[in-house]
Amino acid sequence: MKRGMVLYKGKVQSVFERDGHIYTEGKTMINEKDVHWLPPIEAKTIFALGLNYREHAKELTFQPPSEPLVFLKGKNSLIGHMNDTVRPKDVTYMHYECELAVIIGQRGKRIPIKDAYNYVRGYTVANDYAFRDYLENYYRPNFCAKSRDASTPIGPWLVDKEDISNPMNLTLKTYVNGVLVQEGNTSDMIFSIPEIIAYLSEFLTLQPGDIILTGTPKGALNTKVGDEVVTEIEEIGTLVNRVVDEIG
Amino acid sequence: MKRGMVLYKGKVQSVFERDGHIYTEGKTMINEKDVHWLPPIEAKTIFALGLNYREHAKELTFQPPSEPLVFLKGKNSLIGHMNDTVRPKDVTYMHYECELAVIIGQRGKRIPIKDAYNYVRGYTVANDYAFRDYLENYYRPNFCAKSRDASTPIGPWLVDKEDISNPMNLTLKTYVNGVLVQEGNTSDMIFSIPEIIAYLSEFLTLQPGDIILTGTPKGALNTKVGDEVVTEIEEIGTLVNRVVDEIG
Repeated sequence: MKRGMVLYKGKVQSVFERDGHIYTEGKTMINEKDVHWLPPIEAKTIFALGLNYREHAKELTFQPPSEPLVFLKGKNSLIGHMNDTVRPKDVTYMHYECELAVIIGQRGKRIPIKDAYNYVRGYTVANDYAFRDYLENYYRPNFCAKSRDASTPIGPWLVDKEDISNPMNLTLKTYVNGVLVQEGNTSDMIFSIPEIIAYLSEFLTLQPGDIILTGTPKGALNTKVGDEVVTEIEEIGTLVNRVVDEIG
Repeated sequence: MKRGMVLYKGKVQSVFERDGHIYTEGKTMINEKDVHWLPPIEAKTIFALGLNYREHAKELTFQPPSEPLVFLKGKNSLIGHMNDTVRPKDVTYMHYECELAVIIGQRGKRIPIKDAYNYVRGYTVANDYAFRDYLENYYRPNFCAKSRDASTPIGPWLVDKEDISNPMNLTLKTYVNGVLVQEGNTSDMIFSIPEIIAYLSEFLTLQPGDIILTGTPKGALNTKVGDEVVTEIEEIGTLVNRVVDEIG
């Protein structure tokens, strides 16, 4: 099942997908042009991995991390499918990052690697934009680079884990204005989904609604105002976003 | 007014302080020994500043940051007054950090420095323990060092801003087993409360319930299992916490 959240006729509504159409919970088919997309789930804590694909770490000329490099993101950063992300006037490099987002479905601490998938509810697509200027700093703070308002499109659908053949073998692609610019496969992750879940739950209790952004493959290029950025993951979905100018 | 949250007779209750006594909202006086303290507010996003006191930056032999060094903390890290914090078996250095916590009361973006206090609801005390072993790493990740379950006692009281004479001139003290080990004053902050609020709100929308931990002064020393750690801020309150052993 693919589930989403939309604003439709002035109300937040849960919707699902069938045969390419959108239905309300009351099974009314609705037209996509009438909905405003929201993130498919009310996020609790948002974890994100830096440099979790070998080739991406190389392209940024960083050494690959020896343990998962995790940072937190503010909920303010999430927006839905078909929404806009502002390119701040003062940045020279803002790149997309197509990422598989893992949605936690069950509370757990000290989860063994072998049991990790039991704690997963499903998956969605995220575009974890990075404002690189803010990272070029002695302290490499993730905060300004990764928690700006509306900087992380996510969705459109939360896909149940039962519907995904193998989350560790999915193709990720990003298109800018229709041109393929980034391509990778989740099999290239340095730390796999079960390893990440085991790692996080050593330190803290994972909760239903927690989201883990699992990192991006090679091919992160600069974007400009007006770009249409499409991030797409096999079996999961296609997430569309537009880069807009800062006003004022 | 000083307001807190407790578990009392099996129910989460809002309480207030008068003349050193605790009252329920129904104005029943209750005995402190009958309550389990919770964080005084349901946190939204938790921001924390690293190295925001000059002498503390020096003691860690880091250069003082040229802009606020902000990281996010997970809500799972918060616990109330009189609760325990686990010292993980595998760390060699876990230090307390007495910090003034600023509670946001009003939604705002791009807040000018001169208006910043209008967005503050009040203050409380936090002890933002750091697990230093996890920071000694090429990427200096804040995550494992700062977002462990139950690693950040906060409270006991949220004190209305109207009751604080000058938040930028308050003495902070930490006592371990009754011995004064850390002392500083909020006037030594590198970035003041209004500067931090202005800085954060450039990137994102501050929300009621957001908490800003404003950094710790010099004097962060190792703790051991069994230590009673008391963090105290003039006019705000006294927060008691105990360091306990990891089980299993």
